[in-house]
Amino acid sequence: MNTELLDREDLLAEVRDQFYLPAGQVYLDGNSLGPLPLAARDRVADLTSRQWGEDLITSWNRHGWIDLPQRCGEKIAPLLGASQGQVVCCDSISVNLFKVLTAALRLNSGRKLVLSQKDNFPTDLYMAQGLEQLLGAERCELKTVTATELENCLDSSVAVLMLTHVNFRSGEVHDMVRLTELAHKNGILVIWDLAHSAGALPLELDRCGVDFAVGCGYKFLNGGPGAPAFVYVAQRWQDAAVNVLSGWMGHAQAFAFAPDYVPAAGINRFLSGTPPILAMAALDAALDVFAQVDMQQVRNKSLALSDLLIERLDNDPALTELRLISPRQHHLRGSQVALAHPDAYALTQCLIAHGFVADFRAPDILRVGITPLYTRFADIEAFAKRLAVILSGGEYRQPRFAERQRVT
Amino acid sequence: MNTELLDREDLLAEVRDQFYLPAGQVYLDGNSLGPLPLAARDRVADLTSRQWGEDLITSWNRHGWIDLPQRCGEKIAPLLGASQGQVVCCDSISVNLFKVLTAALRLNSGRKLVLSQKDNFPTDLYMAQGLEQLLGAERCELKTVTATELENCLDSSVAVLMLTHVNFRSGEVHDMVRLTELAHKNGILVIWDLAHSAGALPLELDRCGVDFAVGCGYKFLNGGPGAPAFVYVAQRWQDAAVNVLSGWMGHAQAFAFAPDYVPAAGINRFLSGTPPILAMAALDAALDVFAQVDMQQVRNKSLALSDLLIERLDNDPALTELRLISPRQHHLRGSQVALAHPDAYALTQCLIAHGFVADFRAPDILRVGITPLYTRFADIEAFAKRLAVILSGGEYRQPRFAERQRVT
Repeated sequence: MNTELLDREDLLAEVRDQFYLPAGQVYLDGNSLGPLPLAARDRVADLTSRQWGEDLITSWNRHGWIDLPQRCGEKIAPLLGASQGQVVCCDSISVNLFKVLTAALRLNSGRKLVLSQKDNFPTDLYMAQGLEQLLGAERCELKTVTATELENCLDSSVAVLMLTHVNFRSGEVHDMVRLTELAHKNGILVIWDLAHSAGALPLELDRCGVDFAVGCGYKFLNGGPGAPAFVYVAQRWQDAAVNVLSGWMGHAQAFAFAPDYVPAAGINRFLSGTPPILAMAALDAALDVFAQVDMQQVRNKSLALSDLLIERLDNDPALTELRLISPRQHHLRGSQVALAHPDAYALTQCLIAHGFVADFRAPDILRVGITPLYTRFADIEAFAKRLAVILSGGEYRQPRFAERQRVT
Repeated sequence: MNTELLDREDLLAEVRDQFYLPAGQVYLDGNSLGPLPLAARDRVADLTSRQWGEDLITSWNRHGWIDLPQRCGEKIAPLLGASQGQVVCCDSISVNLFKVLTAALRLNSGRKLVLSQKDNFPTDLYMAQGLEQLLGAERCELKTVTATELENCLDSSVAVLMLTHVNFRSGEVHDMVRLTELAHKNGILVIWDLAHSAGALPLELDRCGVDFAVGCGYKFLNGGPGAPAFVYVAQRWQDAAVNVLSGWMGHAQAFAFAPDYVPAAGINRFLSGTPPILAMAALDAALDVFAQVDMQQVRNKSLALSDLLIERLDNDPALTELRLISPRQHHLRGSQVALAHPDAYALTQCLIAHGFVADFRAPDILRVGITPLYTRFADIEAFAKRLAVILSGGEYRQPRFAERQRVT
């Protein structure tokens, strides 16, 4: 395949210029931490020096800090297929999951089962386990099954189906339309975790009738390390949904300093404490990149990039040791390619030493993030070539690549 | 009083140079949002351009992002009178309160009453109300009383005493030693909210035997707008305390991605989701200012500054319309001076127009933050003079000062 031609014809090619990308590096870990958008760098500098430095407390009004959670939310909404007034930016995915999980259980009182997937991202399961501990087995019980068992378990005993749309290891995509519909037929409320979906593939939460969703700002949305997360609550639930993390930012009149909590109308009641403005401003600026692109275009390029990598795996004899974990079928594949290898950790470290940054996920997965906003076809080709050289030459077997760091 | 002489003899005078302070302004709102430490500005720029921009995902190890909550916590600990391993930085005060409130109730099972103060900062009460809703009246009940009624209510029916050490309106300080001791005598666990205490006055959590505490990073700690909060859990409770917001950052082995939550040893289990690194790095840099000062010196200067303001109120006939709400006695006064006036809102706006930034708190309080790290005696004198001119001239009665903004 002529990757030069593909890059020349790439409709998204120019978007790359909006990111700072370190020289001599191919960054294939944007599904873990997106790179720095130039606009985010500039916004953070302005926020620090001018807004915080010069305008101080008046910036809450003057520079709209007080509305930032809503403004960020409305920028994320179109990426989720959500109409206005259903998304706010706040807290972490973990904390937001706790909010919607308690809200959903309360809305579906009489049932207590939270159904999820065994290999869901662990923090999702941990948060449900925390709620189990708090409420006791009579009010909340987490049940986890394999992906294939899910559909058979959607019966009237289940209160909430809590799933991550794109699996963080394999990149496999759940059928959101079908699972949401099946759940609803059985009176089950649905929470989707969109950590590896938002900004990666087109979503249609409203059309699917999704009840609740959460997602993160630092992966495909490029909002910076630990960027605040978001929460989606379908309009039809907003009046009845209770956010038990009822902090003052979710109050109907936060600055009245009234002694009793009165939830704000709409999605705003899902805010809790004061938001980290520096971190949220970076995300806000990063989101502007998405205003210029069409998510279907992003998706098309993502599939073309991962197809290219899979084609190399299939055809380069040096790559046969790697086992493709991600699905081949387009509708089942998210925006990453997961490759199993017994020495995946050392391989990842060796690749990084050569300037190809992918990541490792236990026990044996080399995870290649596919991020069309700044990744070129030539990057994927160069990555596949380097991987082949490393595998055939055995360089990754050097002891220095085997030494584990805490975070990869 | 000769304020020039006081400023010349001020041992903390040079610390002011470590802050960016807008020209032509006297900033008396550092108890709401601390000003920009130059080190925070530089750290944020480095974090954005070099760490995020150049080093990307490797920064979690290379630049110690993964340990930032602990490192910040250990910098805050000495300000609280806490020995190592008891403080971490994370989330908001609201969310952290939920964590320690649920943990304390669980440790004191058999009791359900959470005792607090009617005019506690509202978000504290709101979080307890949220927990009431979640657990039901049979497991959690919030009871609020006036400050004077508190001691009489400390009996064996109470599970948790949850108080803010320094009142956000009046600046009145609770007797932490006495109340903690009385609570413990009655088998009550104690949670202190240190929002207006940390970095403002010397604290001795360990010596007082406090069980839990929370506090915020953006007021006296100067960590930036919405800076992450902190949580203190006394060592003796750490093994038994359960954090029901059990996100992956609090797991014993976060990167093992195990399906079951196993709490980390010690204070780390009180972390939940991924922290906002940009915001936390600003706080981390801001905290370095405190390494150079003695909190007793800070306290002495704070009292001298507020004494100066009170002396003007007592002696300037133009200021008699203002009613001092903050206590006169040193041991009862925090690091602010609250002044009641029927037109407090308009007065505040008029002062701001003249470059004296204080804030308004409903219904009728002009709140003057006293922040010794960068406030000079001459600033307080100039403020008192301007206030006298505004009051006697009636400028604050102009309609433009009466128009309310959402945040002040």
